[in-house]
Amino acid sequence: MRGKVYLVGAGPGDPELLTLRAMRVLQEAEVVLYDRLVAPAVLELANPLAQRVYAGKELGQQECVQSEIFRQLLFHARAGRKVVRLKGGDPMVYGRGGEEWAFLAGEGVEVEVVPGVSSALALPGLAGIPLTLRGVAGGFSVLSGHAQGGSLPELAPYARSDTLVILMGVKERVRIARELLRLGRSPQEPIAFIEKGSTPQERVVVATLGQVAAGELEVQSPAVWIIGQVVRLRERLHPASVLQEAQLKTLSIAETVR
Amino acid sequence: MRGKVYLVGAGPGDPELLTLRAMRVLQEAEVVLYDRLVAPAVLELANPLAQRVYAGKELGQQECVQSEIFRQLLFHARAGRKVVRLKGGDPMVYGRGGEEWAFLAGEGVEVEVVPGVSSALALPGLAGIPLTLRGVAGGFSVLSGHAQGGSLPELAPYARSDTLVILMGVKERVRIARELLRLGRSPQEPIAFIEKGSTPQERVVVATLGQVAAGELEVQSPAVWIIGQVVRLRERLHPASVLQEAQLKTLSIAETVR
Repeated sequence: MRGKVYLVGAGPGDPELLTLRAMRVLQEAEVVLYDRLVAPAVLELANPLAQRVYAGKELGQQECVQSEIFRQLLFHARAGRKVVRLKGGDPMVYGRGGEEWAFLAGEGVEVEVVPGVSSALALPGLAGIPLTLRGVAGGFSVLSGHAQGGSLPELAPYARSDTLVILMGVKERVRIARELLRLGRSPQEPIAFIEKGSTPQERVVVATLGQVAAGELEVQSPAVWIIGQVVRLRERLHPASVLQEAQLKTLSIAETVR
Repeated sequence: MRGKVYLVGAGPGDPELLTLRAMRVLQEAEVVLYDRLVAPAVLELANPLAQRVYAGKELGQQECVQSEIFRQLLFHARAGRKVVRLKGGDPMVYGRGGEEWAFLAGEGVEVEVVPGVSSALALPGLAGIPLTLRGVAGGFSVLSGHAQGGSLPELAPYARSDTLVILMGVKERVRIARELLRLGRSPQEPIAFIEKGSTPQERVVVATLGQVAAGELEVQSPAVWIIGQVVRLRERLHPASVLQEAQLKTLSIAETVR
């Protein structure tokens, strides 16, 4: 039997945001290699008999480097297993999905991509922030805020986008905000951070770019950062109602149990 | 009973790319208002008893204007019904999800967003084109190529992005390509159009930006257009294998029937 690797998007956190195909592939998996950004509730949906391999990188833990991930994927695929490589959001947006596919293709291993709901798009939407809005934002850009060797990613090509979505930008938020101001964005521009989006711990922080640059904002990682006038729409949309409904459901379950 | 409107993302076309929540909400729907870009196979998954209302806009047909969509959503919600507003891709990326939510919130109607897999991200990924790739593309931009009153959308703020994804740009592809060349992109830059992505009719056209500008490319709408060096990765990834597998499945079903 020939093994196969599925590059599967786990979505932003809420297990109900998995796709039907991701769910099917997870339930048929023999091995699941998962990242730090994959929610435990999603991992629980995998075939209970599947071998689970943690492939994340975390401070203070032994670093599981990319070459070790390559080695594991190849090992299990060559042993004829159905391998799910589970990544937060969509597997081909950051997270090195393209690199893993290229490596495996080069080794003759069959690969299939199972797209996921990207945190960059879905979390703003759920929070009442459309990335595009007629007359306000005609397009948007997504970029990483992760600094490599002390230097920020190049922001200039994206600084003029109507809407900016920055992933992995919590740690460098002050430097990024100052650089965006230098590149011409306004300190009055509204911004939002969505922490732990789509999970029960979700918290949305709304402020201005100037406040971020001044170091006035406490934000916890992981968070999606949105910059642009579209953030203003959130006030009009009462997204709190969705949360209230979820809380009511929890309450009624508790009452039923009693 | 209070009605409610669900703004639901139908994904790029393949029904298996619906989220679990979208599936649940569709099966509980009493009314489904759907767009032109929603695949028939997705619509078939809705509650068979649900009233189906076509809310698309097509040339040569009577235009169902946005105010009529607003009116229908409000009418059914006020009648206490569970209304699904089904949109291609993600409901808050283009498609006026933000506007519909704002309108309904202003009328006191409860709204819930159910994110979808965005065609802008998932279709390139499925076709072997990651939107980001270490050392090649650090970020990407998504914009609309739809001309309003004869004039193109403003491309300049996005023209320097490592990867560009243009939706609704088939009709104006020659003008857009010429404008991008004028703004400094190279005529040798690789591009891809993905027609009818994730459906059995999918077709991927790979060329250069210069060829598009010269009017050498035949492309059918709807298609997602990707511009950038990431397109080169596709050759290395053998995505044809996925298609072959799908064809084999169809064959084996046909043989079983015999």
